[in-house]
Amino acid sequence: MEKHDHTFHFREEFQLESGEVLPGFQLRYTTLGRINADRSNVVWVCHALTGSSDISDWWRPLFAPGSPLDPAHHLVICANVPGGCYGSSGPLSINPENGNYYFHDFPLLTNRDAVCAFDLLRQHLGIGKIHTLIGGSLGGQQVLEWAIQQPDVFERIIPIACNAYHSPWGIAFNETQRLAIAADPTWTNDEHRAGEKGMLAARAIAMLSYRHYDGYRNRQSELSVDKLDDFRAASYQRYQGEKLVKRFNAFTYWTLSKMMDNHHVGRGRESVEAALRSIKARALVIGIDSDILFPVQEQEYLARYIPDSEFRVINSLFGHDGFLVEFDQLNHHLQEFLNERNSIRKAI
Amino acid sequence: MEKHDHTFHFREEFQLESGEVLPGFQLRYTTLGRINADRSNVVWVCHALTGSSDISDWWRPLFAPGSPLDPAHHLVICANVPGGCYGSSGPLSINPENGNYYFHDFPLLTNRDAVCAFDLLRQHLGIGKIHTLIGGSLGGQQVLEWAIQQPDVFERIIPIACNAYHSPWGIAFNETQRLAIAADPTWTNDEHRAGEKGMLAARAIAMLSYRHYDGYRNRQSELSVDKLDDFRAASYQRYQGEKLVKRFNAFTYWTLSKMMDNHHVGRGRESVEAALRSIKARALVIGIDSDILFPVQEQEYLARYIPDSEFRVINSLFGHDGFLVEFDQLNHHLQEFLNERNSIRKAI
Repeated sequence: MEKHDHTFHFREEFQLESGEVLPGFQLRYTTLGRINADRSNVVWVCHALTGSSDISDWWRPLFAPGSPLDPAHHLVICANVPGGCYGSSGPLSINPENGNYYFHDFPLLTNRDAVCAFDLLRQHLGIGKIHTLIGGSLGGQQVLEWAIQQPDVFERIIPIACNAYHSPWGIAFNETQRLAIAADPTWTNDEHRAGEKGMLAARAIAMLSYRHYDGYRNRQSELSVDKLDDFRAASYQRYQGEKLVKRFNAFTYWTLSKMMDNHHVGRGRESVEAALRSIKARALVIGIDSDILFPVQEQEYLARYIPDSEFRVINSLFGHDGFLVEFDQLNHHLQEFLNERNSIRKAI
Repeated sequence: MEKHDHTFHFREEFQLESGEVLPGFQLRYTTLGRINADRSNVVWVCHALTGSSDISDWWRPLFAPGSPLDPAHHLVICANVPGGCYGSSGPLSINPENGNYYFHDFPLLTNRDAVCAFDLLRQHLGIGKIHTLIGGSLGGQQVLEWAIQQPDVFERIIPIACNAYHSPWGIAFNETQRLAIAADPTWTNDEHRAGEKGMLAARAIAMLSYRHYDGYRNRQSELSVDKLDDFRAASYQRYQGEKLVKRFNAFTYWTLSKMMDNHHVGRGRESVEAALRSIKARALVIGIDSDILFPVQEQEYLARYIPDSEFRVINSLFGHDGFLVEFDQLNHHLQEFLNERNSIRKAI
C-alpha cells in the first residue's frame, strides 16, 4: 500500500457559512495508490468525528489488497476535516492574523464549510471526476452535502450511518457531551489541554450512543455476581474516555460536534427532499441495524429521495460503531455495488 | 387527600451490606389516607432515583379520588430512600460520630440496605402485611429486593420499568454520569454544592437514557431549518440539568446511582431465577415499550420467573420516563390487576 501524507495550503480568505471568515487554512491529506491515466479512479473518503486522514489506520481492511477499493487500482484520498486536530487548520492552529492559537476564538464551522474546503483541494489536485465518495457518520453527512453542492463531480457516493439533517436526539447527545466539557472549568482556559477531563466524560457519553444495550451485555457483563462496585462496564467507560484524551483535544471535539449538529441539507434550499433529489451520483446508502444514534430509518429516508440509490443494512452488535468494525459486510456491499455499476456500464 | 409527613429515627447501629456501619439513620416518610381496622390496606411506594417521599407530588394521579390506589381506601406510604436528600439520612446529613457532614465519607449503599431500612420502619409502624408494594426504576428494583427478603409480608407487588440486576448498559450510563460529576473539580470539595456543574451534565446524560430518538424528534424538533446553533434539543438538555441542580445534590446522585448499579437479586443467593421464584406475592410486572434504559426484555424476564405474575406493557413516547407520565395506562393496569385479585379472593 503506497501511502503518502501531504498538506494543502489555501492562502486566501475563506468565507464560512456563519458569515465569519478564516484567513486561509491548511488541510492534511493522505493518499493511497496512484491516479490512473484518465484520472478516473479517485476514491475520496470523509472521516468521522474523531478520525484522521490516515485511512490505512482506521479503515485499513477497506483498502486491503483484493478489496473493492484496493489502492492497487484506485487513488484513495482522505483529508482531515477543517476544525480537526490531525494536521488541518483547527482551534489549536495559529491564527495568522494575530500570531496566537485560536482556542476559543475558532469560528463555528458547518459541513458545507468542510466540503467547500475539500473541494478546493480537489480542484487544486486537478481532479474533475470522483469515482466514489464514501464516509460514515459525520463523514457520511459530508458525503451528502458535497454530492449536493457539486452534483457533477461524483459518479458514486456511499453515505454510511448518517442522515439528511442531524436529529434532535443526536443534537441532545452532542450538547450533553459539551455540557460535560463545560463542567470542567479548565475548559475556559486558553491552553491546549483545556477541558480534558470533561472530554473524558464526553467520550464516555458518545460511547453510549455508538453502542447499545445488547452490545454492552455481550461484552461488559460481570463474571461474578458478588461485586458491589467497580463493574466492568464502568471501567470500560473510563478507559474509552482516557484513550481519547491521549489523542484528541476538547476544542476540536466541541467544533466538530457543533458541525454535526448543524448538518442540514435543506438549509437555504427548497427542501430536504429536493436537495436529496438533486444528487446525480449513484448512491449506495448503508445503515447499521443496531445504530441508535443514526437509526436506519434515517438512511431509508436518504435512499427514498436520492434518485439512483440502493439501501443496504449491516447486521452488527456494535451499533453506530459498526461502520468501523464490520469490514466484511462493508466490503461485500461495496463489491456488489461497484461490480453492478461496472457491468451496467459495460453493457451499455 | 389526607397527607402527612413524618420522620422515623433508628438509633442503633445499622449494618450495611458492604460491611460498613451507619450509626443509626432517619427516614422521612409521607402518608396519604389512613390504615383500616384490620390493617389490610397498606400500599407502600418506592420512589425513583431523584424522587422524594411526596407521592402526591410526582405520582399524584395514581392516588387521585377514584383511582385504584385511592387514599380514601388505602394507607399509602412512601419513605425517602437512605442516601437521599429529601429528609432521610444521606451524604448531607451530620455524622453523629464526629459532628461533621458525611459528604464523601457517606458509605456505599445497596438496595438491600435500603429495603432493610424500610422494613425497620414497617415494623416500627406495626404493619404486618402490605396489600401492595409498588415502584418504578430504582424503586422497582427495591420492590423486587424487598419482596425477596420478606416474602411473607407482601400480598401484591408491582415492579415497573426495572430489572433483576442492573445491566452493563445501565451501569455504563451511570458511570458516565459520575465521570461528568468528577469532571467538575469542585466535586472533591466537602461542601453542599460540590460537583453541581458536573451533576448538571449528569442529569442531561440521564435524560438521554430516560427518553429516546422518537421522543426527542416529536418534542424537540426545530421549527426553522435556518439555524446554525442554539438548537431546541440542546436547550432542553441544559434546562433539564439546571432544573435538577436546584433541587438535588451531587453526593446523593452519586450514592443512589451506585445503589442502582449494584442491584442484583442473585448476589449471595442460589441464582437470580431462584431469588425471583422465592417471591410469594402476586406480581404485576409493567414495562414501557420505548424504554431504552430498562428494556421490556428485562421485565419479561422478571415475569417469567416470579411464580404468580402478569406482564403488561405501557405504550409511550416517553421512554423510561413513561412511568412518571402515562398515568391513565398505569391506572388501567392497576385497576385490572387489583380487581381481578379481589374477585378471585371473593370467589374462593
